[in-house]
Amino acid sequence: MNKTNYTLLCDFYELTMGNGYFMEKMGKNIAYFDVFFRSVPDNGGFAIACGLNSIIDYIQNLQFTDDDIEFLRQKNVFDEGFLNYLKNFKFTGDMWAVPEGTVVFPNEPIITVKAPVIEAQFIETFLLLCINHQSMVATKANRIVRAADGRAVMEFGSRRSHGATAAIEGARAAGIAGCAGTACTQTDKLYGMKALGTMAHSWILMFDSELEAFEAYCRCYPDNAVLLVDTYNTLKSGVPNAIKAFDNILKPLGKRPAGIRLDSGDITYLSKKARKMLDDAGYPDCKITASNSLDEYLIRDMLLQGAKVDSFGVGERLITAKSSPVFGGVYKLCAVEKNGEIVPKIKVSENVGKITNPDFKKVYRFYDKQTNKAVADLLCKYDEQIDENSPLKIFDPDYTWKRTILTNFHARVLLEKIFEGGKLVYTQPSFEQSTAYCKTEVESLWDEVKRFENPHKYYVDLSEKLWNEKQKLLMAVKN
Amino acid sequence: MNKTNYTLLCDFYELTMGNGYFMEKMGKNIAYFDVFFRSVPDNGGFAIACGLNSIIDYIQNLQFTDDDIEFLRQKNVFDEGFLNYLKNFKFTGDMWAVPEGTVVFPNEPIITVKAPVIEAQFIETFLLLCINHQSMVATKANRIVRAADGRAVMEFGSRRSHGATAAIEGARAAGIAGCAGTACTQTDKLYGMKALGTMAHSWILMFDSELEAFEAYCRCYPDNAVLLVDTYNTLKSGVPNAIKAFDNILKPLGKRPAGIRLDSGDITYLSKKARKMLDDAGYPDCKITASNSLDEYLIRDMLLQGAKVDSFGVGERLITAKSSPVFGGVYKLCAVEKNGEIVPKIKVSENVGKITNPDFKKVYRFYDKQTNKAVADLLCKYDEQIDENSPLKIFDPDYTWKRTILTNFHARVLLEKIFEGGKLVYTQPSFEQSTAYCKTEVESLWDEVKRFENPHKYYVDLSEKLWNEKQKLLMAVKN
Repeated sequence: MNKTNYTLLCDFYELTMGNGYFMEKMGKNIAYFDVFFRSVPDNGGFAIACGLNSIIDYIQNLQFTDDDIEFLRQKNVFDEGFLNYLKNFKFTGDMWAVPEGTVVFPNEPIITVKAPVIEAQFIETFLLLCINHQSMVATKANRIVRAADGRAVMEFGSRRSHGATAAIEGARAAGIAGCAGTACTQTDKLYGMKALGTMAHSWILMFDSELEAFEAYCRCYPDNAVLLVDTYNTLKSGVPNAIKAFDNILKPLGKRPAGIRLDSGDITYLSKKARKMLDDAGYPDCKITASNSLDEYLIRDMLLQGAKVDSFGVGERLITAKSSPVFGGVYKLCAVEKNGEIVPKIKVSENVGKITNPDFKKVYRFYDKQTNKAVADLLCKYDEQIDENSPLKIFDPDYTWKRTILTNFHARVLLEKIFEGGKLVYTQPSFEQSTAYCKTEVESLWDEVKRFENPHKYYVDLSEKLWNEKQKLLMAVKN
Repeated sequence: MNKTNYTLLCDFYELTMGNGYFMEKMGKNIAYFDVFFRSVPDNGGFAIACGLNSIIDYIQNLQFTDDDIEFLRQKNVFDEGFLNYLKNFKFTGDMWAVPEGTVVFPNEPIITVKAPVIEAQFIETFLLLCINHQSMVATKANRIVRAADGRAVMEFGSRRSHGATAAIEGARAAGIAGCAGTACTQTDKLYGMKALGTMAHSWILMFDSELEAFEAYCRCYPDNAVLLVDTYNTLKSGVPNAIKAFDNILKPLGKRPAGIRLDSGDITYLSKKARKMLDDAGYPDCKITASNSLDEYLIRDMLLQGAKVDSFGVGERLITAKSSPVFGGVYKLCAVEKNGEIVPKIKVSENVGKITNPDFKKVYRFYDKQTNKAVADLLCKYDEQIDENSPLKIFDPDYTWKRTILTNFHARVLLEKIFEGGKLVYTQPSFEQSTAYCKTEVESLWDEVKRFENPHKYYVDLSEKLWNEKQKLLMAVKN
């Protein structure tokens, strides 16, 4: 199911540019592109990269069918030689990327592509839509998981997602970022993220009374009964009927109830009252789950006010990242090869924030050896080496007088090689491995970077070599 | 490609409830569900329904594979008889829906399903995610198209969409709602919505100079040259070089330029200056396209200030409906059959807005015969008939003293039969037909309903019979 051929899911201009390069005999020129983003959603301190798994599938399934080529021929804009070339089109280049679940910051490469320009340009649209969608959901989900402060968060958003892929891959991204389960059955089957759920209001309405509905459910799921208690009146009807059903059906079987779910009303208030009713009835182990348009702010507030909630079901505001539903990843040319030499390229702009970092780059992340916390990232030219045993001077690329000397640090190269000459050379981690990795990634950050409001700005600096090169290119353009 | 089997794209609770109904021997009980939404995105006056095409594909492709069933068996919660039943699972019920492109209002059924409860419940997740996603995009796109006031709007959002389906089906929804083209090549191939595009900044950077890049493009596309003019400096470099390229390459061929694209800076200002430069150079027929995080408000402002823009490329704010990225469609049980009788069901709630309209219903839309404008919708019991030749008294369901008498009206039944006994009985319109239909739908509304701010609230009333029945059910619950 995730092996769909998405070759034609490309902006049409990738094809017209490709045809143009072909006609200008530039198609084999080597180009370098970076994927990066410019600002963190929700004014947060960091983002979590996700989407590489889909990209690997895409690259491996790239193929124009005869049907696709005939469709393009009908457009009457493509050279017949180009259409012929597309018959055997595949990705033959190199790709580097950060693993899924990596903490990332604005303006640093998440993916770098080196390939003949037609290929490198062609894959732009799909790379961006995967990274943008899945990093957006992962970043949002991790905020919500952190707000829940150790309580389980379940991803319940399929029905409000932006279509099938958004539901399936969005749930997976939420899982990598820390969600404990999902409503989406397909995501469980594909990736092993646990699918779970309770019942809909319709279950209750299908029976003649709420008590009958609850008793039937306890009969069917004696080990797993989570009852939805707000169909008529949570405290006057729902919770008392749940307790009766537990007493009538589960107790004789020697079973304990799994939980109740609150889905409307003032959940903080209701959860405290329901907790007391359950405790008094002898069910202190019966969990309370809350749902109903939750997000990180509502969850934080509920917990601050002492809500007795053991787990959260979070839907629309997670799966659509409602408060920040656009992740602005871009794909920019940073270098070309000319006579075997790498020639750096820069995109200037009236808007200073849109000026790109040129050249084929390497990204280092530095960790303090004592605390193991990440302290800064550094963008270098691809062949620069960092000596961990010498003090390292880094400086702010805009305010260059802001300088820091790093000592006693560990340096890690952030991007891993994914494709080499079109061949997958990366060992893809399992879903569980990515989830565990993401957890350690977030743990490597200082609390100051993790604040929801006014987080500390993590340093992403340029090496002196790269900084000098960028200045030179900017000056050349401005002359 | 749109024939994927999405059977397991369901909330896990659809399956546990299904299993429960099976075990309780209620699986064949007939249930009626409505899809409806409660509020219009962006505080608009109406929404545009979309997503039925995907739902029809889904229903026709519903099938649990052996692999799916084995996956479910491993969960250790499903009855073996139920798993066996799933082997031949298909939708055998009836479905009614409004055609894609229909103008719809809160609290009226967009889809009604009548089927054995396991089937009717099972399809909830996929129905909702299609309707929610595609209606959201169609509604947003139509706002943007109306703001552009006759100028072409192109959907350019694939790269910022929430995954592959969001790009492909989102573009289609935007097309039905009035967008003139899309960047998404796959949507063109699948549905015939015209794919188009210009060039990326990378095209310019691949050449040694902007002029060489423009000239190369004009050589490749003499009939179709739209040049992106903001890579270095729009007015000092981009537009002058575009004019040179038109002069050097197109003029000798006797070709006229197609256009230029502005993608950054103050587009209103730049468009006026660029217009004059093009006119003075003898290219008054060269179109100006604008892009860069546009939406209906920015477009309206630009046009108010006299921007000389002929067409708009709209990306992230359309494809994600950024200002309102959740379309809150729900799926609610409205009736069951018992001993051959239809028994209405109602979901009450502390929140009055969440109380549902009970019973198997029919929706009428009334048009004034003189103006052909829509004046009110009426929810009735399924077997009520409206006599167009008698005056009709309608009243507000909340403020019942607000009454109107309709005369000289035409009554239209809004929902069409899509499936009957599991068989498709609906003739699916083509993409072009849906687009034309949507246009007439929006034209049938008074301008007051189409305002962006404080639109007139269109009447959606209940028939007296249905209103009385609802009151009776509410009273019974409250006793």
